[in-house]
Amino acid sequence: MRSGCTASVVLWRRMLKRALFSSPHPSSSYIIGPNYLPDVWVQNNNTGRRSGVHYSTGHNAAKIDGKSIAQEIRLRIASEISRIKSAIGKFPKLAVVLVGDRRDSHTFIHIKLKACEEVGIATSVAELPENCTENELVHVVSRFNEDPTVHGIIVQLPLPPQLDEEHIINFVSPEKDVDGFHPLNMGNLAMKAREPLFIPCASKACIELLLRHGVEIIGKRAVVIGTSKIVGLPTSLLLQKYHATVSTVHAFTKNPEQITCEADIIVSDVGIPNKIRGAWLKQGAVVIDMGTHQVKDPSSQHGFHVTGDVCYEEAIKVAAAITPVPGGVGPVTISMLLSNTLDSAKRAFRLA
Amino acid sequence: MRSGCTASVVLWRRMLKRALFSSPHPSSSYIIGPNYLPDVWVQNNNTGRRSGVHYSTGHNAAKIDGKSIAQEIRLRIASEISRIKSAIGKFPKLAVVLVGDRRDSHTFIHIKLKACEEVGIATSVAELPENCTENELVHVVSRFNEDPTVHGIIVQLPLPPQLDEEHIINFVSPEKDVDGFHPLNMGNLAMKAREPLFIPCASKACIELLLRHGVEIIGKRAVVIGTSKIVGLPTSLLLQKYHATVSTVHAFTKNPEQITCEADIIVSDVGIPNKIRGAWLKQGAVVIDMGTHQVKDPSSQHGFHVTGDVCYEEAIKVAAAITPVPGGVGPVTISMLLSNTLDSAKRAFRLA
Repeated sequence: MRSGCTASVVLWRRMLKRALFSSPHPSSSYIIGPNYLPDVWVQNNNTGRRSGVHYSTGHNAAKIDGKSIAQEIRLRIASEISRIKSAIGKFPKLAVVLVGDRRDSHTFIHIKLKACEEVGIATSVAELPENCTENELVHVVSRFNEDPTVHGIIVQLPLPPQLDEEHIINFVSPEKDVDGFHPLNMGNLAMKAREPLFIPCASKACIELLLRHGVEIIGKRAVVIGTSKIVGLPTSLLLQKYHATVSTVHAFTKNPEQITCEADIIVSDVGIPNKIRGAWLKQGAVVIDMGTHQVKDPSSQHGFHVTGDVCYEEAIKVAAAITPVPGGVGPVTISMLLSNTLDSAKRAFRLA
Repeated sequence: MRSGCTASVVLWRRMLKRALFSSPHPSSSYIIGPNYLPDVWVQNNNTGRRSGVHYSTGHNAAKIDGKSIAQEIRLRIASEISRIKSAIGKFPKLAVVLVGDRRDSHTFIHIKLKACEEVGIATSVAELPENCTENELVHVVSRFNEDPTVHGIIVQLPLPPQLDEEHIINFVSPEKDVDGFHPLNMGNLAMKAREPLFIPCASKACIELLLRHGVEIIGKRAVVIGTSKIVGLPTSLLLQKYHATVSTVHAFTKNPEQITCEADIIVSDVGIPNKIRGAWLKQGAVVIDMGTHQVKDPSSQHGFHVTGDVCYEEAIKVAAAITPVPGGVGPVTISMLLSNTLDSAKRAFRLA
């Protein structure tokens, strides 16, 4: 086990210090969970240009700035954790389980641990080798389930093929399932008149961005592209809880652009860079891009650039508002993990 | 406690006897759960006539005969139960919990008990008074949860207002939740790569009717009207598991007919008699009507007639196929309860 620790936190701490004396509001409840398991879509050569679609030339879509929204949420969370610590001497703790050596998993965990550190959430990391057994992994999860100082548990996905992901997720206590992937939490998210203990973070981030941007959801036509448990499914369910009329588009959908171009709100979890073209969008739609892809780019310093599912250059000419990639849903998703962990701790401390 | 017992079973038993010697196939796995909790729709004076909609005058929609499909399923279930009994001397048992004196609840229970009796499923009925406490109800459910001779438990809904329906459903063991309303089963239904132990019966009936009628689901546009846990929600989730492109329409949807008229498959759980007019349908759509309403009718012998959500006379002129009410989804839904109970018993007997 190791404790997550990072640099560049100094500046953030200064901001936090200011926030502690200026932000009296408690953190509202949000969510987290950014491991993308995209649907299997076939990449096509569709140019995205469809006759009859009007690209406005003057006005570009408003950019929904996830970075600053995420920062604001984190400042509030940090402030609330600080107050709880002062009042009762306790603080939230997140346990992270990491199996194997996938570079992307290590990067995600690094980002999560850094974010925890910034807001005052303690962390405990269990690293297991790539070839570990299911029993070994279950044992680690059990220990975190039983540890009363741990309020949230995340098992970084994907797992190596010898491990049954569904079985492991079933094993995480629903009371500490801050990723919101346990079927009990998913069922309570799906069902009317019920509230899950946790909602998957990317979906909570999506709704947060819409609400903060003043987008009315009730009665609107929403199309979610993708059905993964991490993004597409819970986002469809959550939009429905907010009374949107939701259509779910996936790899088996014929002519998906005929459905997406009717949507007031479009959420993409398609998993292919630039798949969603301008012609897929209705004039004035709000676009939430849940994709994050590294695309080879020899002209870039790192040899790649980061892009989303949506062809941004085309979309901004049609949409009313859009999340950029990077700097859109991603940082808010991390803030939602912090928020879920804080909420869980408050329940444990009997403060919620 | 009383044992469910009915008349008019003699004829059925004769048919069963024949089936026992003629039907070698084991029962396939289906589902159950027919308590309709409709969305709150506003009744309107929409005539349902929209310019541009073509009503064919010659050809009427094919009637999807739920009654005969239900009978076929029940014969197979009875045959399988008979074989199990002969082989190991054991049989499935369904426990039914009934609170209060609602006439419709008593009617539903009567139908379910009769169906159980016909196929050889034993029953145990616990009746509690209208003013019973939650503790008393929980105690009864616990007893059934712990009874190894009980394989399925249904708590007839709705419950009196002093009882928390969600809390009671949570209390039913997911392994005996033959209605499929437990959030754990609903979550597993919602999530890709998972299978719930039970799927709500009305939804399973819907898919059964589609498949038996030879309707291709994969890639088709499906619209489900309604989001109740009993019908609308699980039907949306199940259609999605069969790779339909699903849109869910509800009371907050503006101009729902603009969405329904694009559907290849339309499932109605709207809860208002004759709400779905011919103009809401695409030419050649398949219509599954999940509604059952008693409409006052002085000209009828009983003072009412039974109708569905769909205006049948208009719909048959547009649709390719439609379930009638009565005689459509209803009887198959009951068969799915029997099927779920049998499946549960087979798991308990280690035959599945």
